[in-house]
Amino acid sequence: MLSPQPLRNGETPSPHPRISAPHFHSTLSVQKLRRFNSLILLLRLLAFCFSLSSSIFMLTNSRGSDSPSWRDFDAFRYVFAANAIVAIYSLLEVAASAWEVLKSATIFPEVLQVWFDFGHDQIFAYLLLSAGSAATALVKTLKDRDTCRSFSAFCLQSDIAIALGFLGFLFLGFTTLLSGYRVVCFVINGSRFHL
Amino acid sequence: MLSPQPLRNGETPSPHPRISAPHFHSTLSVQKLRRFNSLILLLRLLAFCFSLSSSIFMLTNSRGSDSPSWRDFDAFRYVFAANAIVAIYSLLEVAASAWEVLKSATIFPEVLQVWFDFGHDQIFAYLLLSAGSAATALVKTLKDRDTCRSFSAFCLQSDIAIALGFLGFLFLGFTTLLSGYRVVCFVINGSRFHL
Repeated sequence: MLSPQPLRNGETPSPHPRISAPHFHSTLSVQKLRRFNSLILLLRLLAFCFSLSSSIFMLTNSRGSDSPSWRDFDAFRYVFAANAIVAIYSLLEVAASAWEVLKSATIFPEVLQVWFDFGHDQIFAYLLLSAGSAATALVKTLKDRDTCRSFSAFCLQSDIAIALGFLGFLFLGFTTLLSGYRVVCFVINGSRFHL
Repeated sequence: MLSPQPLRNGETPSPHPRISAPHFHSTLSVQKLRRFNSLILLLRLLAFCFSLSSSIFMLTNSRGSDSPSWRDFDAFRYVFAANAIVAIYSLLEVAASAWEVLKSATIFPEVLQVWFDFGHDQIFAYLLLSAGSAATALVKTLKDRDTCRSFSAFCLQSDIAIALGFLGFLFLGFTTLLSGYRVVCFVINGSRFHL
């Protein structure tokens, strides 16, 4: 139902975006945009760090053949896969955001970039939440059984991996709000520049 | 960072919203709006039906003292609570949507209504997904144990309740997209009317 927007590559913002606007306004807009993009970059960096840590904690949660391994449990495999996918996605998005902060240009055409970011942020936030919830329920049942009494280090490391995954979800959730806001800005003005 | 919008109560759309626009255009807009609101109403009704069914299926999943009960498992209590909350919320939203379709006016002031709908849709979609994922992981462990062999009806009914909850999440997720689009329309035009 949205009216189609023309494809356009990200361009450097004009020093005089509105001829009638006074100079201090355009400077303020550029400053605001830079601060906004830096905030997105920071959130993506945090989401990357936490999801990478979560997947590494889960991957290394195995202590020989006489101890349980994360590979034996579907929910733990789900946590590893979800966090690894989000870590790779976040790393690419960190690179794209850093490029945008430095060069003031998007890598893909602008319309594609804002919708791509928002759509993927939303879906991956669902994925991380789903994996974290499933693994929490599994750990709860392991604690009710003898597993966690016999192998407390295994359960502790699982807990840490899950908690890190939830923190990753939290930062990705905040990023979703900001990338959603960028979509709104784009739909309103035909450009992500005008805040 | 959004510029503040003036509070305004929902009003009936003017028969001539734009003086310069030809008559067929305004008629088309009103028709489109009615169709859009009817679609939201339908999705909310479906979300209500599925989340209510899910909570009832879970609530009745108990067969005497010698059989396991849903109350013994945190994840099943979570599914019941989440689906009951969403069913109540959806029922209220169905009433609000029906009111809007019939009277062409929102119950709350317009700015409050669009943001309230979108925010709650998003949070409750997360809630349903989280509950469904946790319960799926629990059922998986119950199936690995003897519980599901001895009490297959209990596990089957749990499966049905969880599946109904996921369907509720699906329809609530679609509603989130539409209510998000309504927010965009409101931010663009200062009214949810102009599609």
